[in-house]
Amino acid sequence: MTSSHLEPAPPVPPPSRFDTRRYEIVDIAAGLFARHGYHATSLDDLCEATALKRGGLYHYIGSKEELLYLIHERFIEPLLAAAHEVESRGASPDATLRGLAHVLMGVIAEYNDQVTVFLHEWRSVVDKDSERAERVRQARRDFESVIERTLERGMADGSFTPRKPMLSVLAFLGMINYAYQWYRPDGDYSAAEVADVFCDIYLLGAGTRR
Amino acid sequence: MTSSHLEPAPPVPPPSRFDTRRYEIVDIAAGLFARHGYHATSLDDLCEATALKRGGLYHYIGSKEELLYLIHERFIEPLLAAAHEVESRGASPDATLRGLAHVLMGVIAEYNDQVTVFLHEWRSVVDKDSERAERVRQARRDFESVIERTLERGMADGSFTPRKPMLSVLAFLGMINYAYQWYRPDGDYSAAEVADVFCDIYLLGAGTRR
Repeated sequence: MTSSHLEPAPPVPPPSRFDTRRYEIVDIAAGLFARHGYHATSLDDLCEATALKRGGLYHYIGSKEELLYLIHERFIEPLLAAAHEVESRGASPDATLRGLAHVLMGVIAEYNDQVTVFLHEWRSVVDKDSERAERVRQARRDFESVIERTLERGMADGSFTPRKPMLSVLAFLGMINYAYQWYRPDGDYSAAEVADVFCDIYLLGAGTRR
Repeated sequence: MTSSHLEPAPPVPPPSRFDTRRYEIVDIAAGLFARHGYHATSLDDLCEATALKRGGLYHYIGSKEELLYLIHERFIEPLLAAAHEVESRGASPDATLRGLAHVLMGVIAEYNDQVTVFLHEWRSVVDKDSERAERVRQARRDFESVIERTLERGMADGSFTPRKPMLSVLAFLGMINYAYQWYRPDGDYSAAEVADVFCDIYLLGAGTRR
Protein backbone atom coordinates (compact mmCIF):
# COMPACT_ATOMS: atom_id res chain seq x y z
CA MET A 1 0.00 0.00 0.00
CA THR A 2 2.88 2.37 -0.60
CA SER A 3 2.11 3.27 -4.21
CA SER A 4 1.77 7.01 -4.42
CA HIS A 5 -0.96 6.53 -7.04
CA LEU A 6 -3.35 5.24 -4.39
CA GLU A 7 -2.89 8.04 -1.92
CA PRO A 8 -4.71 11.33 -2.15
CA ALA A 9 -2.45 14.27 -2.96
CA PRO A 10 -1.66 16.39 0.10
CA PRO A 11 -3.72 19.58 0.19
CA VAL A 12 -1.94 22.49 -1.49
CA PRO A 13 -1.60 25.39 0.96
CA PRO A 14 -2.86 28.72 -0.35
CA PRO A 15 -0.01 30.96 -1.59
CA SER A 16 1.38 33.34 1.02
CA ARG A 17 1.02 37.09 0.57
CA PHE A 18 4.69 37.14 -0.44
CA ASP A 19 4.12 34.52 -3.15
CA THR A 20 0.97 36.20 -4.43
CA ARG A 21 2.80 39.50 -4.83
CA ARG A 22 5.78 37.73 -6.37
CA TYR A 23 3.57 36.03 -8.97
CA GLU A 24 2.11 39.43 -9.86
CA ILE A 25 5.60 40.82 -10.39
CA VAL A 26 6.68 37.77 -12.41
CA ASP A 27 3.65 38.15 -14.69
CA ILE A 28 4.24 41.88 -15.20
CA ALA A 29 7.88 41.17 -16.08
CA ALA A 30 6.83 38.40 -18.47
CA GLY A 31 4.58 40.89 -20.29
CA LEU A 32 7.41 43.40 -20.65
CA PHE A 33 9.98 40.78 -21.73
CA ALA A 34 7.55 39.24 -24.25
CA ARG A 35 6.82 42.62 -25.87
CA HIS A 36 10.21 44.33 -25.72
CA GLY A 37 12.73 41.53 -25.12
CA TYR A 38 14.63 40.61 -21.96
CA HIS A 39 17.70 42.72 -22.67
CA ALA A 40 15.76 45.78 -23.81
CA THR A 41 13.79 45.82 -20.53
CA SER A 42 15.69 47.72 -17.84
CA LEU A 43 15.37 47.46 -14.07
CA ASP A 44 13.87 50.95 -14.21
CA ASP A 45 11.18 49.65 -16.60
CA LEU A 46 10.44 46.84 -14.13
CA CYS A 47 10.29 49.26 -11.19
CA GLU A 48 7.94 51.57 -13.06
CA ALA A 49 5.61 48.74 -14.17
CA THR A 50 5.45 47.19 -10.69
CA ALA A 51 5.44 50.50 -8.75
CA LEU A 52 8.35 49.19 -6.67
CA LYS A 53 11.72 50.71 -5.84
CA ARG A 54 14.82 48.64 -6.65
CA GLY A 55 15.09 47.37 -3.08
CA GLY A 56 11.50 46.16 -3.13
CA LEU A 57 11.98 44.52 -6.52
CA TYR A 58 15.08 42.63 -5.39
CA HIS A 59 13.26 41.56 -2.21
CA TYR A 60 10.75 39.67 -4.37
CA ILE A 61 12.80 38.47 -7.31
CA GLY A 62 16.48 38.47 -6.34
CA SER A 63 17.85 39.37 -9.78
CA LYS A 64 16.78 39.90 -13.37
CA GLU A 65 18.06 36.44 -14.36
CA GLU A 66 16.14 34.93 -11.43
CA LEU A 67 13.01 36.30 -13.10
CA LEU A 68 13.57 34.01 -16.07
CA TYR A 69 13.48 30.97 -13.80
CA LEU A 70 10.39 32.23 -11.99
CA ILE A 71 8.70 32.90 -15.35
CA HIS A 72 9.47 29.31 -16.39
CA GLU A 73 8.15 27.84 -13.13
CA ARG A 74 4.99 29.86 -13.55
CA PHE A 75 3.77 27.70 -16.44
CA ILE A 76 5.79 24.48 -16.19
CA GLU A 77 4.46 23.55 -12.73
CA PRO A 78 0.76 23.68 -13.66
CA LEU A 79 1.59 22.06 -17.03
CA LEU A 80 3.38 19.09 -15.46
CA ALA A 81 0.78 18.63 -12.73
CA ALA A 82 -2.06 18.61 -15.27
CA ALA A 83 -0.18 16.30 -17.68
CA HIS A 84 0.50 13.76 -14.92
CA GLU A 85 -3.13 13.93 -13.85
CA VAL A 86 -4.29 13.19 -17.44
CA GLU A 87 -1.84 10.29 -17.71
CA SER A 88 -2.87 8.81 -14.35
CA ARG A 89 -6.47 8.40 -15.54
CA GLY A 90 -5.31 5.38 -17.56
CA ALA A 91 -7.49 6.24 -20.58
CA SER A 92 -6.77 4.96 -24.14
CA PRO A 93 -3.73 6.41 -25.96
CA ASP A 94 -6.04 8.50 -28.21
CA ALA A 95 -7.97 9.93 -25.28
CA THR A 96 -4.80 10.55 -23.28
CA LEU A 97 -3.15 12.38 -26.20
CA ARG A 98 -6.24 14.51 -26.67
CA GLY A 99 -6.21 15.35 -22.96
CA LEU A 100 -2.54 16.35 -23.21
CA ALA A 101 -3.29 18.57 -26.22
CA HIS A 102 -5.96 20.38 -24.20
CA VAL A 103 -3.63 20.80 -21.23
CA LEU A 104 -0.76 22.16 -23.35
CA MET A 105 -2.94 24.46 -25.45
CA GLY A 106 -4.63 25.74 -22.29
CA VAL A 107 -1.27 26.63 -20.75
CA ILE A 108 -0.11 28.39 -23.94
CA ALA A 109 -3.32 30.43 -23.96
CA GLU A 110 -3.19 31.30 -20.24
CA TYR A 111 0.58 31.87 -19.95
CA ASN A 112 1.32 33.20 -23.43
CA ASP A 113 3.79 35.85 -22.23
CA GLN A 114 5.61 33.41 -19.97
CA VAL A 115 5.91 30.74 -22.69
CA THR A 116 7.10 33.37 -25.20
CA VAL A 117 9.80 34.65 -22.84
CA PHE A 118 10.94 31.15 -22.06
CA LEU A 119 11.21 30.09 -25.72
CA HIS A 120 12.91 33.33 -26.80
CA GLU A 121 15.28 34.11 -23.96
CA TRP A 122 16.18 30.90 -22.18
CA ARG A 123 19.01 29.81 -24.47
CA SER A 124 20.82 33.13 -24.54
CA VAL A 125 20.56 34.10 -20.89
CA VAL A 126 20.79 31.38 -18.27
CA ASP A 127 23.92 29.85 -16.86
CA LYS A 128 23.55 26.45 -18.45
CA ASP A 129 25.68 24.62 -15.88
CA SER A 130 23.68 25.68 -12.85
CA GLU A 131 21.59 23.26 -10.83
CA ARG A 132 18.59 25.46 -11.52
CA ALA A 133 19.10 25.29 -15.29
CA GLU A 134 19.25 21.52 -14.96
CA ARG A 135 15.86 21.57 -13.21
CA VAL A 136 14.42 23.52 -16.16
CA ARG A 137 15.79 20.96 -18.62
CA GLN A 138 14.46 18.15 -16.43
CA ALA A 139 10.97 19.68 -16.36
CA ARG A 140 10.93 19.90 -20.17
CA ARG A 141 12.09 16.28 -20.44
CA ASP A 142 9.38 15.21 -17.96
CA PHE A 143 6.67 16.76 -20.10
CA GLU A 144 8.06 15.30 -23.33
CA SER A 145 8.26 11.89 -21.62
CA VAL A 146 4.54 11.89 -20.87
CA ILE A 147 3.83 12.45 -24.59
CA GLU A 148 6.44 9.89 -25.62
CA ARG A 149 5.02 7.21 -23.28
CA THR A 150 1.52 7.85 -24.64
CA LEU A 151 2.68 7.56 -28.25
CA GLU A 152 4.68 4.40 -27.54
CA ARG A 153 1.70 2.85 -25.72
CA GLY A 154 -0.47 3.57 -28.78
CA MET A 155 2.14 2.12 -31.16
CA ALA A 156 2.40 -1.00 -28.96
CA ASP A 157 -1.36 -1.65 -28.69
CA GLY A 158 -1.96 -1.02 -32.41
CA SER A 159 -4.00 2.16 -32.04
CA PHE A 160 -1.18 4.34 -33.47
CA THR A 161 0.85 3.82 -36.65
CA PRO A 162 4.41 2.84 -35.69
CA ARG A 163 6.75 5.72 -36.47
CA LYS A 164 9.92 7.19 -35.03
CA PRO A 165 8.76 8.13 -31.50
CA MET A 166 10.99 11.20 -31.11
CA LEU A 167 9.85 12.76 -34.40
CA SER A 168 6.25 11.90 -33.51
CA VAL A 169 6.69 13.75 -30.19
CA LEU A 170 8.25 16.74 -31.96
CA ALA A 171 5.44 16.91 -34.54
CA PHE A 172 2.82 16.92 -31.78
CA LEU A 173 4.70 19.46 -29.65
CA GLY A 174 5.47 21.73 -32.60
CA MET A 175 1.92 21.83 -33.90
CA ILE A 176 0.67 23.02 -30.51
CA ASN A 177 3.65 24.94 -29.09
CA TYR A 178 3.92 27.13 -32.18
CA ALA A 179 0.55 28.59 -31.16
CA TYR A 180 2.54 30.85 -28.81
CA GLN A 181 3.33 32.84 -32.01
CA TRP A 182 -0.24 33.39 -33.17
CA TYR A 183 -2.81 32.47 -30.51
CA ARG A 184 -4.73 35.41 -29.06
CA PRO A 185 -7.43 34.94 -26.37
CA ASP A 186 -9.65 37.45 -28.21
CA GLY A 187 -9.06 35.76 -31.60
CA ASP A 188 -11.34 33.53 -33.67
CA TYR A 189 -10.77 30.26 -31.80
CA SER A 190 -10.88 29.08 -28.19
CA ALA A 191 -7.92 27.10 -26.90
CA ALA A 192 -10.15 24.00 -26.64
CA GLU A 193 -11.23 24.36 -30.27
CA VAL A 194 -7.61 24.62 -31.44
CA ALA A 195 -6.65 21.56 -29.36
CA ASP A 196 -9.54 19.53 -30.83
CA VAL A 197 -8.89 20.44 -34.48
CA PHE A 198 -5.14 19.89 -34.09
CA CYS A 199 -5.76 16.52 -32.42
CA ASP A 200 -8.12 15.51 -35.23
CA ILE A 201 -5.42 16.34 -37.75
CA TYR A 202 -2.69 14.65 -35.69
CA LEU A 203 -4.65 11.45 -35.03
CA LEU A 204 -6.86 11.16 -38.12
CA GLY A 205 -4.78 13.02 -40.72
CA ALA A 206 -5.75 15.79 -43.10
CA GLY A 207 -5.82 13.46 -46.11
CA THR A 208 -8.52 10.98 -47.11
CA ARG A 209 -6.25 8.57 -49.05
CA ARG A 210 -4.57 5.79 -47.00
CA MET B 1 0.81 34.41 -75.41
CA THR B 2 1.26 36.88 -72.58
CA SER B 3 0.87 34.44 -69.68
CA SER B 4 3.96 34.68 -67.55
CA HIS B 5 3.65 30.94 -66.88
CA LEU B 6 4.68 30.16 -70.42
CA GLU B 7 7.72 32.33 -70.56
CA PRO B 8 11.08 31.26 -69.22
CA ALA B 9 12.16 33.16 -66.12
CA PRO B 10 14.72 35.86 -66.88
CA PRO B 11 18.21 34.73 -65.95
CA VAL B 12 19.16 35.78 -62.42
CA PRO B 13 22.34 37.88 -62.51
CA PRO B 14 25.09 36.69 -60.17
CA PRO B 15 25.26 38.75 -56.95
CA SER B 16 27.61 41.71 -57.08
CA ARG B 17 30.67 41.80 -54.84
CA PHE B 18 28.79 44.29 -52.67
CA ASP B 19 25.83 41.91 -52.27
CA THR B 20 28.04 38.90 -51.61
CA ARG B 21 29.85 40.74 -48.82
CA ARG B 22 26.54 42.09 -47.50
CA TYR B 23 25.08 38.57 -47.30
CA GLU B 24 28.13 37.44 -45.33
CA ILE B 25 27.62 40.28 -42.86
CA VAL B 26 23.89 39.58 -42.59
CA ASP B 27 24.59 35.91 -41.84
CA ILE B 28 27.23 36.73 -39.21
CA ALA B 29 24.80 39.16 -37.56
CA ALA B 30 22.03 36.54 -37.65
CA GLY B 31 24.31 34.11 -35.81
CA LEU B 32 25.07 36.66 -33.09
CA PHE B 33 21.45 37.78 -32.73
CA ALA B 34 20.22 34.16 -32.60
CA ARG B 35 22.68 33.24 -29.84
CA HIS B 36 22.75 36.40 -27.73
CA GLY B 37 19.62 38.33 -28.73
CA TYR B 38 19.27 41.45 -30.87
CA HIS B 39 19.47 43.96 -28.02
CA ALA B 40 22.36 42.23 -26.26
CA THR B 41 24.47 42.39 -29.44
CA SER B 42 26.28 45.73 -29.71
CA LEU B 43 27.64 47.46 -32.78
CA ASP B 44 31.09 46.71 -31.36
CA ASP B 45 30.22 43.00 -31.31
CA LEU B 46 29.15 43.26 -34.96
CA CYS B 47 32.35 45.12 -35.91
CA GLU B 48 34.50 42.54 -34.15
CA ALA B 49 32.73 39.56 -35.74
CA THR B 50 32.83 41.06 -39.26
CA ALA B 51 36.31 42.62 -38.93
CA LEU B 52 34.81 45.93 -40.08
CA LYS B 53 34.98 49.40 -38.59
CA ARG B 54 31.68 51.19 -37.93
CA GLY B 55 31.88 53.13 -41.18
CA GLY B 56 32.37 49.93 -43.16
CA LEU B 57 29.52 48.23 -41.33
CA TYR B 58 27.12 51.11 -42.03
CA HIS B 59 28.20 51.11 -45.67
CA TYR B 60 26.84 47.58 -46.03
CA ILE B 61 23.87 47.48 -43.69
CA GLY B 62 22.71 51.05 -43.02
CA SER B 63 21.58 50.48 -39.43
CA LYS B 64 21.08 47.75 -36.85
CA GLU B 65 17.32 47.69 -37.49
CA GLU B 66 17.98 47.45 -41.23
CA LEU B 67 19.78 44.19 -40.45
CA LEU B 68 16.51 42.66 -39.23
CA TYR B 69 14.91 43.31 -42.62
CA LEU B 70 17.93 41.95 -44.48
CA ILE B 71 17.90 38.84 -42.26
CA HIS B 72 14.24 38.32 -43.12
CA GLU B 73 14.80 38.77 -46.86
CA ARG B 74 17.64 36.26 -46.66
CA PHE B 75 15.25 33.33 -46.12
CA ILE B 76 11.86 34.60 -47.28
CA GLU B 77 12.96 35.22 -50.87
CA PRO B 78 14.26 31.67 -51.53
CA LEU B 79 11.29 30.28 -49.56
CA LEU B 80 8.69 32.11 -51.66
CA ALA B 81 10.45 31.36 -54.95
CA ALA B 82 10.63 27.63 -54.14
CA ALA B 83 7.03 27.51 -52.87
CA HIS B 84 5.69 29.14 -56.04
CA GLU B 85 7.77 26.75 -58.13
CA VAL B 86 6.26 23.74 -56.29
CA GLU B 87 2.76 25.14 -56.72
CA SER B 88 3.27 25.85 -60.43
CA ARG B 89 3.95 22.16 -61.14
CA GLY B 90 0.20 21.52 -60.80
CA ALA B 91 0.64 18.24 -58.91
CA SER B 92 -2.06 16.72 -56.67
CA PRO B 93 -2.82 18.47 -53.37
CA ASP B 94 -0.99 15.70 -51.42
CA ALA B 95 2.11 15.92 -53.58
CA THR B 96 2.06 19.74 -53.52
CA LEU B 97 1.77 19.82 -49.72
CA ARG B 98 4.64 17.37 -49.42
CA GLY B 99 6.73 19.54 -51.71
CA LEU B 100 5.94 22.60 -49.59
CA ALA B 101 6.93 20.73 -46.42
CA HIS B 102 10.30 19.91 -47.98
CA VAL B 103 10.81 23.50 -49.09
CA LEU B 104 9.94 24.95 -45.67
CA MET B 105 11.93 22.40 -43.68
CA GLY B 106 14.90 22.92 -46.00
CA VAL B 107 14.83 26.68 -45.40
CA ILE B 108 14.56 26.21 -41.61
CA ALA B 109 17.58 23.88 -41.72
CA GLU B 110 19.66 26.14 -43.99
CA TYR B 111 18.66 29.49 -42.47
CA ASN B 112 18.14 28.44 -38.85
CA ASP B 113 19.75 31.57 -37.37
CA GLN B 114 17.84 33.88 -39.70
CA VAL B 115 14.48 32.22 -38.98
CA THR B 116 15.20 32.29 -35.23
CA VAL B 117 16.03 36.00 -35.28
CA PHE B 118 12.96 36.78 -37.31
CA LEU B 119 10.58 34.85 -35.03
CA HIS B 120 12.14 36.21 -31.83
CA GLU B 121 12.88 39.83 -32.61
CA TRP B 122 10.55 40.99 -35.32
CA ARG B 123 7.60 41.92 -33.12
CA SER B 124 9.57 43.93 -30.61
CA VAL B 125 11.87 45.84 -32.91
CA VAL B 126 10.51 47.00 -36.22
CA ASP B 127 8.47 50.07 -36.94
CA LYS B 128 5.23 48.34 -37.72
CA ASP B 129 3.82 51.17 -39.81
CA SER B 130 6.68 51.36 -42.28
CA GLU B 131 6.35 50.31 -45.88
CA ARG B 132 9.14 47.83 -45.33
CA ALA B 133 7.34 46.18 -42.41
CA GLU B 134 4.28 45.87 -44.64
CA ARG B 135 6.42 44.04 -47.22
CA VAL B 136 7.48 41.57 -44.51
CA ARG B 137 3.88 40.95 -43.51
CA GLN B 138 2.94 40.57 -47.19
CA ALA B 139 5.69 37.98 -47.74
CA ARG B 140 4.42 35.91 -44.80
CA ARG B 141 0.86 36.14 -46.09
CA ASP B 142 2.04 35.08 -49.58
CA PHE B 143 3.63 31.93 -48.18
CA GLU B 144 0.62 31.08 -46.01
CA SER B 145 -1.63 31.62 -49.04
CA VAL B 146 0.22 28.96 -51.03
CA ILE B 147 -0.45 26.46 -48.22
CA GLU B 148 -4.05 27.62 -47.83
CA ARG B 149 -4.78 27.28 -51.56
CA THR B 150 -3.30 23.76 -51.55
CA LEU B 151 -5.41 22.71 -48.55
CA GLU B 152 -8.57 24.21 -50.04
CA ARG B 153 -7.91 22.49 -53.36
CA GLY B 154 -7.59 19.17 -51.50
CA MET B 155 -10.79 19.78 -49.54
CA ALA B 156 -12.61 20.68 -52.75
CA ASP B 157 -11.49 17.61 -54.75
CA GLY B 158 -12.15 15.22 -51.84
CA SER B 159 -8.54 14.26 -51.18
CA PHE B 160 -8.45 16.17 -47.86
CA THR B 161 -10.95 16.04 -45.00
CA PRO B 162 -12.86 19.33 -44.89
CA ARG B 163 -11.77 21.31 -41.83
CA LYS B 164 -11.33 24.96 -40.92
CA PRO B 165 -8.73 26.07 -43.50
CA MET B 166 -6.96 28.63 -41.28
CA LEU B 167 -6.47 26.16 -38.41
CA SER B 168 -5.33 23.55 -40.93
CA VAL B 169 -2.71 25.99 -42.24
CA LEU B 170 -1.57 26.82 -38.69
CA ALA B 171 -1.27 23.14 -37.75
CA PHE B 172 0.90 22.48 -40.81
CA LEU B 173 3.03 25.59 -40.32
CA GLY B 174 3.44 25.02 -36.59
CA MET B 175 4.50 21.40 -36.90
CA ILE B 176 7.30 22.40 -39.28
CA ASN B 177 8.18 25.95 -38.18
CA TYR B 178 8.71 24.85 -34.58
CA ALA B 179 11.70 22.86 -35.82
CA TYR B 180 13.62 26.15 -35.61
CA GLN B 181 13.73 25.41 -31.84
CA TRP B 182 15.20 21.92 -32.03
CA TYR B 183 16.55 21.09 -35.52
CA ARG B 184 20.35 20.77 -35.75
CA PRO B 185 22.10 19.91 -39.05
CA ASP B 186 24.39 17.52 -37.15
CA GLY B 187 21.45 15.89 -35.30
CA ASP B 188 19.76 12.52 -35.82
CA TYR B 189 17.55 13.48 -38.78
CA SER B 190 18.01 15.13 -42.16
CA ALA B 191 15.63 17.95 -43.08
CA ALA B 192 14.11 15.72 -45.79
CA GLU B 193 13.46 12.93 -43.27
CA VAL B 194 11.72 15.33 -40.89
CA ALA B 195 9.59 16.74 -43.74
CA ASP B 196 8.56 13.23 -44.83
CA VAL B 197 7.63 11.93 -41.36
CA PHE B 198 5.78 15.15 -40.52
CA CYS B 199 3.89 14.98 -43.83
CA ASP B 200 2.97 11.36 -43.18
CA ILE B 201 1.55 12.37 -39.80
CA TYR B 202 -0.19 15.44 -41.21
CA LEU B 203 -1.75 13.66 -44.19
CA LEU B 204 -2.25 10.10 -42.87
CA GLY B 205 -2.57 10.74 -39.12
CA ALA B 206 -0.79 9.10 -36.22
CA GLY B 207 -3.84 7.02 -35.25
CA THR B 208 -5.16 3.84 -36.87
CA ARG B 209 -8.83 4.26 -35.84
CA ARG B 210 -11.00 6.28 -38.23
